[in-house]
Amino acid sequence: MGKKPLILVTNDDGITAPGIRNLIAVMNEIGEVVVVAPNSPQSAMGHAITINSTLHCTPIEVPEGTHKEYSCSGTPADCVKLAVNEILDRKPDLCVSGINHGSNSSINVIYSGTMSAAVEAGIEGIQAIGFSLLDYRWNADFSAIKEYVKKITISAIKNKIPSNVVLNVNFPKLQKEEIKGIKICRQANAYWAEEFDKRTNPMGLDYYWLTGKFVNEDKGEDTDEWALHNGFISVVPVEFDLTAHHAIQQLNTWGFE
Amino acid sequence: MGKKPLILVTNDDGITAPGIRNLIAVMNEIGEVVVVAPNSPQSAMGHAITINSTLHCTPIEVPEGTHKEYSCSGTPADCVKLAVNEILDRKPDLCVSGINHGSNSSINVIYSGTMSAAVEAGIEGIQAIGFSLLDYRWNADFSAIKEYVKKITISAIKNKIPSNVVLNVNFPKLQKEEIKGIKICRQANAYWAEEFDKRTNPMGLDYYWLTGKFVNEDKGEDTDEWALHNGFISVVPVEFDLTAHHAIQQLNTWGFE
Repeated sequence: MGKKPLILVTNDDGITAPGIRNLIAVMNEIGEVVVVAPNSPQSAMGHAITINSTLHCTPIEVPEGTHKEYSCSGTPADCVKLAVNEILDRKPDLCVSGINHGSNSSINVIYSGTMSAAVEAGIEGIQAIGFSLLDYRWNADFSAIKEYVKKITISAIKNKIPSNVVLNVNFPKLQKEEIKGIKICRQANAYWAEEFDKRTNPMGLDYYWLTGKFVNEDKGEDTDEWALHNGFISVVPVEFDLTAHHAIQQLNTWGFE
Repeated sequence: MGKKPLILVTNDDGITAPGIRNLIAVMNEIGEVVVVAPNSPQSAMGHAITINSTLHCTPIEVPEGTHKEYSCSGTPADCVKLAVNEILDRKPDLCVSGINHGSNSSINVIYSGTMSAAVEAGIEGIQAIGFSLLDYRWNADFSAIKEYVKKITISAIKNKIPSNVVLNVNFPKLQKEEIKGIKICRQANAYWAEEFDKRTNPMGLDYYWLTGKFVNEDKGEDTDEWALHNGFISVVPVEFDLTAHHAIQQLNTWGFE
């Protein structure tokens, strides 16, 4: 395209998170950037949207660069809806979400606010990529992965992501020279074994903190977990048609008519 | 099985909603019932989980029947996690969620709290079904569909839902004699065209209400939307491996190595 691509940037850690600040810097090298991101952390929000309360969205002063930024009171999916319908004057060519502070590989995609923004964009017919680094710390080091973020983004713009698909990109927590490359993967069949931490408050009422252990019994070498544990960046194509097409035939033998 | 199946019941409209009260009544005819449901409405929560705040879960007096009920401060997915890990003394044979006041057909499955509970159970290896009626009113009439809820549940227990699949069941808003039967379907490829209602508050600050119009351009006669519009109950097998397996080959031509 002759014109610079219009890129919508969002995340779930909130607009001040180092992950999104790094993502904005990379996108400013590629296209015309508009940021619409939550004003507070929205992790583990899944694909929540705000229907029973109001949404605010405020232009904010841009720390560096000539792009535009808006801080929004909603969830990541709300941010995409608001951006597309109220803020942008044309449909963006790409939506990128992240860079998340922490993994969204495997089953984490289901709970992920980062990926819900990408999926929401995908539903609206916009090419979309979610980026996550396997380091949940606020001061995580994004310098090793910025060139890969740029490479993957440019490749997606050039090759076009297949319709009804968005990309879930996860980066291992490694030094630049330790990263072995990029692998296209399937989502590993893993889960969280929950362990609730039960406590009693000063008034004598029991309460719980959700904690857990990630369990991966999927030994496939074509999974995102395998790639990340072996020094690769994982790219999983994600779809939002959740139909288990392979199961339809079996259910048809149940005798409903 | 000789022993009565242990059935976990939850929803997203809250434990007092008529939809779940009707579902509990049906499940009491089939198995040993434990209810763990949100203490307040959680619609459109997607697959949110509570990781940054505490959870409360309180046994409540059962209005009728001999089953057990717990009211929980979390999301539908939290309720399933708490039930399985802290409340039940064995893994349930089945988890049912709903009956939702309103549709969860087509793309609504992505935003649905009702379905997030079923999916969470599925991830934990528990057979699961989400039920929804296409009537969002609190005083919706569930009498026409109770026998179908029972029939589908018994059929699922007998035939076993395929692994890594949960069922998304939607009922048309029809009289009993108008319902034509049950159809196994795929998720229609539809979306919400958002229309934000922009207003100004008394302090002069703009805010938005999210509204929208459901757009279905999928003309297939094998979709849930087709079935519901033609008087059938739709049953969609839903999976939580979101990998777009068909897209992997195409992405491998992008030249990453």
